[in-house]
Amino acid sequence: MTIYKAPVEDVSFLLNDVFQIDKYNNLPGFADASLDVREAIIDEAAKLSEEVLHPINGVGDIEGCTRHDDGRVTTPKGFKDAWKQLGEGGWLGLVGPTQYGGQGLPVTLAQPVNEFMMSANMAFSMYPGLTQGAMAALLVHGNDEQKKTFVPNMIAGKWTGTMNLTEPQCGTDLGLMRTKAVKQADGTYKITGTKIFISGGEQDLSDNIVHLVLARIEGAPAGIKGVSLFVVSKMKLNADGSLGGPNGVSCGSIEHKMGIHGNSTCVLNFDNAVGTLVGEENKGMAAMFVMMNEARLGVGVQGLAQSEVAYQNAAAYAKDRLQGRSLTGVKSPDKAADPIIVHPDIRRTLMTIRAFNEAARALVVWTSLKSDLAHRSSDPKERQEADDHMGLLTPVVKGMLTDVGFANAVAAQQVYGGHGYIQETGVEQFVRDARISMIYEGANGIQALDLVGRKLPKDGGRALTAFFNEVTAFAKDNAADESMKAFLGPLNAAVQDLQKATMWLMQNGLKNPDNAGAASTDYLHLLGLVTLGYMWAKMAKVAQDKLANSGEQPYLKSKLVTGKFFMERMLPETALRLTRIQTGAGSMMELPADAF
Amino acid sequence: MTIYKAPVEDVSFLLNDVFQIDKYNNLPGFADASLDVREAIIDEAAKLSEEVLHPINGVGDIEGCTRHDDGRVTTPKGFKDAWKQLGEGGWLGLVGPTQYGGQGLPVTLAQPVNEFMMSANMAFSMYPGLTQGAMAALLVHGNDEQKKTFVPNMIAGKWTGTMNLTEPQCGTDLGLMRTKAVKQADGTYKITGTKIFISGGEQDLSDNIVHLVLARIEGAPAGIKGVSLFVVSKMKLNADGSLGGPNGVSCGSIEHKMGIHGNSTCVLNFDNAVGTLVGEENKGMAAMFVMMNEARLGVGVQGLAQSEVAYQNAAAYAKDRLQGRSLTGVKSPDKAADPIIVHPDIRRTLMTIRAFNEAARALVVWTSLKSDLAHRSSDPKERQEADDHMGLLTPVVKGMLTDVGFANAVAAQQVYGGHGYIQETGVEQFVRDARISMIYEGANGIQALDLVGRKLPKDGGRALTAFFNEVTAFAKDNAADESMKAFLGPLNAAVQDLQKATMWLMQNGLKNPDNAGAASTDYLHLLGLVTLGYMWAKMAKVAQDKLANSGEQPYLKSKLVTGKFFMERMLPETALRLTRIQTGAGSMMELPADAF
Repeated sequence: MTIYKAPVEDVSFLLNDVFQIDKYNNLPGFADASLDVREAIIDEAAKLSEEVLHPINGVGDIEGCTRHDDGRVTTPKGFKDAWKQLGEGGWLGLVGPTQYGGQGLPVTLAQPVNEFMMSANMAFSMYPGLTQGAMAALLVHGNDEQKKTFVPNMIAGKWTGTMNLTEPQCGTDLGLMRTKAVKQADGTYKITGTKIFISGGEQDLSDNIVHLVLARIEGAPAGIKGVSLFVVSKMKLNADGSLGGPNGVSCGSIEHKMGIHGNSTCVLNFDNAVGTLVGEENKGMAAMFVMMNEARLGVGVQGLAQSEVAYQNAAAYAKDRLQGRSLTGVKSPDKAADPIIVHPDIRRTLMTIRAFNEAARALVVWTSLKSDLAHRSSDPKERQEADDHMGLLTPVVKGMLTDVGFANAVAAQQVYGGHGYIQETGVEQFVRDARISMIYEGANGIQALDLVGRKLPKDGGRALTAFFNEVTAFAKDNAADESMKAFLGPLNAAVQDLQKATMWLMQNGLKNPDNAGAASTDYLHLLGLVTLGYMWAKMAKVAQDKLANSGEQPYLKSKLVTGKFFMERMLPETALRLTRIQTGAGSMMELPADAF
Repeated sequence: MTIYKAPVEDVSFLLNDVFQIDKYNNLPGFADASLDVREAIIDEAAKLSEEVLHPINGVGDIEGCTRHDDGRVTTPKGFKDAWKQLGEGGWLGLVGPTQYGGQGLPVTLAQPVNEFMMSANMAFSMYPGLTQGAMAALLVHGNDEQKKTFVPNMIAGKWTGTMNLTEPQCGTDLGLMRTKAVKQADGTYKITGTKIFISGGEQDLSDNIVHLVLARIEGAPAGIKGVSLFVVSKMKLNADGSLGGPNGVSCGSIEHKMGIHGNSTCVLNFDNAVGTLVGEENKGMAAMFVMMNEARLGVGVQGLAQSEVAYQNAAAYAKDRLQGRSLTGVKSPDKAADPIIVHPDIRRTLMTIRAFNEAARALVVWTSLKSDLAHRSSDPKERQEADDHMGLLTPVVKGMLTDVGFANAVAAQQVYGGHGYIQETGVEQFVRDARISMIYEGANGIQALDLVGRKLPKDGGRALTAFFNEVTAFAKDNAADESMKAFLGPLNAAVQDLQKATMWLMQNGLKNPDNAGAASTDYLHLLGLVTLGYMWAKMAKVAQDKLANSGEQPYLKSKLVTGKFFMERMLPETALRLTRIQTGAGSMMELPADAF
């Protein structure tokens, strides 16, 4: 019904040529990710995604998950087997520590694998995604006992993981949390409360589920300063590590959602469930933030992933569907009509999507590399710079890639005309699935506020200054290169818009914080556009050098044309974003609430 | 679950104050639409929409339509009764000729009624919508016998109407049509073929269905010049007008769609169904275009309508949901958190939607008034000018109102956070329902091509020249009015962008038609933005005059603030559209098809 082909060539170009990850062989794990290993992993991930995960994407949507009267939840046909293959193939431990059975490979290599799986089957990919997020939090904040108990089983695919934050009255504002934890004589806690929107909260893939749960210890301070993180095993654990009886966690219902039907989104009831503290009392938010940054990057990749699979299907349809004739003369005289890819408006749609996807993929690889540097570099300055980059660009990756990724899925659907509205065609599922990525892991408005209110001013604006320095240095280094003019001219103009917007924020955001709030979403997209423009300039440089050395290569020629399209048609959106930012909060905030 | 309150005050402001329709009492039907009558109709339509149609919107989505093994189709619970109320209340004959039982009222009055019904229940509103479209085609192109036979029964709500254009291989390109018509000795035709995507093609609301069908008469010329229009009654008609047996039309299946589940979208099989010719042989396209223009305006209103109902629900949620605190200090100290409407990014979303909706509503009323003038004026010049306006702005109303209307529904959904993704909340239905309006009645890319390729150059650009003259004259007339500066400055800048884009098209579109195609969607939105900017300037002028005369009025104050928001934040998008247009077809068309 739908097709998916993993963009292997594009990933290789980014890893090998643009970001040259062989240069980082001094970092732990990177030497193991030699060219051969990388290619094998990327190829195998492509195969798994194309042949195992994508074929069960459509049926997963139609069948959905079912909650039975006894609280058990079954996932769609094929999901259980696919999960088994993930565990057996070692896919859950790609970046996990070797001491717990993982392979310790770089995130830079794992992120393209994630993209493939998310493109192939977004609903399914959330089960491994959340398992890896939960693992990451345990690895950073858990004690040895917790790591030893949970991580190896998660890497093996025997157990899955979840994140339990949201409650009915408490979404973005986690300070409103009510779930409570009562300390027991043996040092464990009994946890009671209701959590909603828990992805994979109950399912039939694994014997056990590792719930990471935010709750308030009796007597804790009000607000987020009284929130602690716990790990709660769905099944009680015997001393020998085997599974005991149920541990007071049950699935009250599963949600009827717009999309991602293959993922079970549960209401979870905790009724004196026994858990252990992860990290320190009342420091749950800090522990959760580790998971959140990883998760936010992952959700950003979901936006790209849905945009990619939607693009591939729309492109195939556009080459196949015969309707009308080219404006510049018949192109397929032997047929009743030309394929619709001859029409400029169809081209506009396809070029817009691919020009975004290719730059977004570069941004993901770039940011993943920084993530590896932040965790693995032996140089404190390099770690700090990488961490600054992560902080600055995580909200951009999450917010922009999902906003635009969704819009791209909608645009791809439009290529199909009426057929795009029909479930059997499959493209409307991409739209419904992509929609959630703009919402969860911090709605995109929250990402924008995080960027403008916290990440920009942090450390005197150090992260943004470093970003400006890098982009400006690149432009200067290549200023003499005539072939780069078409890229650097637009990039420099966009950078100037970003500088003006930043200046405006500095001058007006403190004076009236609503000005910063009013600017936030536009600023996130403005920074995102500049970032993607920089990615295009970097890719163009490498593509031109490669072309000069190796002669005609269709892949590289397409890369340059697509980049040019981005620079001339898409990047100039920065000016509109700047105009909006400079308008401030005036007319936006003027009406009384009851006028709405 | 969801709420809907018809925007009665806004409609009154437009009809009475902005467009002063009492000035047109010399036109047929307008004198009957006196202030009292208008208010009664608007109030009753509001009541019907709020109390009858909206309550069955959610259940219609969940229940959907069911096709039974014998080909019968049942609509969701409550639809049949609502349809009965529509017929009995005279709603189907609002603009219909009095000689056939209609009320002969202006379209200007009927269009707000349509908006209310479409907001309240889009899937349901398509049944009356298509019935009225079919009626319009019969009234213009049918013979007396056809009018007498079909129209009174449609006005009474006894019979419904459909449009049968699309076939599996033939959507936009109607020249590819295969359904054939064979002339019989008695002058009737036997029609055979398969039509798809037929809204309301089979249902249980009415005893009979009036199918308007495009088909190719045996031996007709190839392409669209060989297409004729027929009327085919679902049931055979006896000489006395009573219904006989089935007439060879059957529903083969109903589509599973992304949305509008309450409307039955059918595959219709015509198997030697008896029909009569509407208009002349091989002139079916001309006859169909009558229906299409009406239908395209109606679909544009659907975009506005979904944007409006989505806005209302998001605004209510934003005033109710407590989460976080205002950036400028606590606003609800007695509560655990402030309502989220205090946050600038939520305001940005709500203001963006309402600033669009209010101007779009004005555009619909303006264009409806032109539709009335085009059909009812006794002055040929006035008719021609009104017809020019209709031709120019129909693709804008259809394309822009549905593109932006959908985006607004998505934005409104975002206000809900995770709850917006859950079916029971109801807002995600607005998104799924709104999506179709960008596709059917000519996908929006086709609207853009119609605008740039046909409507702009027609009669030496007469329509656009008249549009420019009107807007420029308004700006000039009010140039001295200090209070209009905030509106006229941005409007003039936007008009200049439009002029430059038009000039570019004239210079480059003929040289290479792909340049026109490459510019088309951006040009449609650019013209749409200028049009909405002009609507805002007109409304601001009237609101300011009224305020000066009548003192404090919250409605008028809100109008001015909302207009200012549009002019400073939204109208400047014209510059981006111009930049894109001036880029041309180069990088867009450069790649070979197999690079996609």
